[in-house]
Amino acid sequence: MGLELRVDAVDGGARATTITTHRGTIATPCFMPVGTRGTIRAADSVDLDRLGAPVVLANTYHLMLKPGAEVVAGLGGLHRFMGWDGHILTDSGGYQVFSLDDGAKVALDDDGVTFRSTYDGSTHRLTPESAVAIQEALGADIQMQLDICPALPSPPDVLREAVESTLVWGGRALGARRRFDDQLLFGIVQGGVDTELRAEAAERTVALCGEDPAGQERFDGFGVGGLSVGESRAEMVPAIEATTAHLPLDRPRYVMGLGDPAGMVEAVAHGVDLFDCVLPTRHGRHGTILTSAGRINLKNAQWATADEPLDPTCPCEVCARWSKGYLRHLIAVNEPTGPRLATLHNLAWTLRLVDDMRQAIVEGRFEALRRDVLAVWG
Amino acid sequence: MGLELRVDAVDGGARATTITTHRGTIATPCFMPVGTRGTIRAADSVDLDRLGAPVVLANTYHLMLKPGAEVVAGLGGLHRFMGWDGHILTDSGGYQVFSLDDGAKVALDDDGVTFRSTYDGSTHRLTPESAVAIQEALGADIQMQLDICPALPSPPDVLREAVESTLVWGGRALGARRRFDDQLLFGIVQGGVDTELRAEAAERTVALCGEDPAGQERFDGFGVGGLSVGESRAEMVPAIEATTAHLPLDRPRYVMGLGDPAGMVEAVAHGVDLFDCVLPTRHGRHGTILTSAGRINLKNAQWATADEPLDPTCPCEVCARWSKGYLRHLIAVNEPTGPRLATLHNLAWTLRLVDDMRQAIVEGRFEALRRDVLAVWG
Repeated sequence: MGLELRVDAVDGGARATTITTHRGTIATPCFMPVGTRGTIRAADSVDLDRLGAPVVLANTYHLMLKPGAEVVAGLGGLHRFMGWDGHILTDSGGYQVFSLDDGAKVALDDDGVTFRSTYDGSTHRLTPESAVAIQEALGADIQMQLDICPALPSPPDVLREAVESTLVWGGRALGARRRFDDQLLFGIVQGGVDTELRAEAAERTVALCGEDPAGQERFDGFGVGGLSVGESRAEMVPAIEATTAHLPLDRPRYVMGLGDPAGMVEAVAHGVDLFDCVLPTRHGRHGTILTSAGRINLKNAQWATADEPLDPTCPCEVCARWSKGYLRHLIAVNEPTGPRLATLHNLAWTLRLVDDMRQAIVEGRFEALRRDVLAVWG
Repeated sequence: MGLELRVDAVDGGARATTITTHRGTIATPCFMPVGTRGTIRAADSVDLDRLGAPVVLANTYHLMLKPGAEVVAGLGGLHRFMGWDGHILTDSGGYQVFSLDDGAKVALDDDGVTFRSTYDGSTHRLTPESAVAIQEALGADIQMQLDICPALPSPPDVLREAVESTLVWGGRALGARRRFDDQLLFGIVQGGVDTELRAEAAERTVALCGEDPAGQERFDGFGVGGLSVGESRAEMVPAIEATTAHLPLDRPRYVMGLGDPAGMVEAVAHGVDLFDCVLPTRHGRHGTILTSAGRINLKNAQWATADEPLDPTCPCEVCARWSKGYLRHLIAVNEPTGPRLATLHNLAWTLRLVDDMRQAIVEGRFEALRRDVLAVWG
């Protein structure tokens, strides 16, 4: 059935949409928690239900190595494996492969990429076609094409080459796709922070099609890749703008790996719908808490006797039930419940932030919210 | 108000009771999960609610050191600290102190015990009176007297001395008690596996009173201490029997530190009501799963593709939602959600086992259940 996107409201460059898939609906802007190995670290799918997250991301790289895509498929696919019936988006594995690159472990060729497992050193290969097949086996609702994500800064020829290869691989991914009823396939736009290259890459990615130019063999949505990898926000925002300006209005736009409050509010201001990021969960595990007044470090001794919630304005279950002093204690004595509850708060806080953005767009006051967010996080 | 105990059913030596306290009711036999540092490791008080555990145990030793009893009191006491309104039983700290004993770190005298913190080496002291005061500050619903728990085997004079000191300290604990409305105080019977010494210790513990022999200054319940410390079941069971035979029928009997299925069913057969043990949670964290067919080690590769629940007969949330293969994967890749879900299953499984014992007692078929449990776990 593919995907339908209804624009519910527009406010400046920002939009609120409802995406309908075979599995259900996704109200945007939407933040997708990262469940790398088939679970959010320190949380489970019951937590996901209670958080109300409509989409979770799982990493193809990790799952193809452990326990293996065929094992996941044998256990009924990712949804049954994780015990979750919400949306699951899988990345292609490419980002993790290229992140490993120390010049020896990863060998890129025109056809694909060969790499060694971080788990046991065994050799594996990903091609645009195998990335599609693996994500089909995993049973993702939304899969991503295999792309090439250069570090930033990179020289112009490296960025250009990444764009060209990613386009070729995008066409091959579309051609390799076999499941249309219950899986969506998103293309990825590269181009670094070069706005002209971004615009060109976006137009050409949108134009890609499989063997049937008139049919369903086009991308169901678009990832904005290669950003949030160390560049400044002043470099990132124009790159996003140059991309989204050339993407169709009836398809979702997803900035991959972005999840900090200021970055998300700026991206939403330029028409982005979807985000994922390990930041809220990783911060939580290390005792860094997201609050309406900014970040706090729960390891700090000043919180030992603090008899108030992590964020007094936060309606999440953690803030409703436990004090900062208690959570600080759990983290100080290395109780795993500490990182867990900090993770749940940070996820709830981030999910509420994007919900607040949606509400503000619907009510025509997004600019005020954007200013408020940037005042704390900018 | 103290404590009321109603005997709901008796079946041979086993009994099902309902204990009513200022906080609510406890149906027995009852297993109390251990929340050492103010939380069950890898679980939280929302989990406790969902498990339906009526009592959780917290460790005075750990809490008095980190974050400190005064900090817990300042944060509203243990219930508010943990975010839980079920019963909390605190031990006296003595068992942990004596477990540390390498002959240098712990100095015992008639008045109390001086020890070094495992956290930072700082020096601390516990007396029968300070143990009461600390547990009052923590806000336990049920506190335990400070006792002396010798290792087994120990020579007769060591066991005798532990009994005599524990009796003196029990009297001092009763005399030191200040809160009667909302805290219960349990005495502890020592005596190793010497049945005569146990019987004597039980009678003398029951007879202890504070300054007012006619009043409320007697123990509200009785711990059977110094067992489940390495002795065989054949040694342990007569020691329990010799103790419970001399305890009043209208007070709870609690075997401290016991929680294996065979040990509990034998103790229940001899009139024990309450248990605590780290075993289900510790096993869970290490991937050892309690099932109706016995223990399984989830790290074993044979479970990698197992598309069935941990225990097909178990109605817990973990068994309802996830496969053995998924949980094995989480543990194999060190996802903290693995130990967490294994912990939740093991606790649910153990809580159901004691519920089953209660039901069997009520229905007059406890002996059949006992045989079934011993056939698997004996």
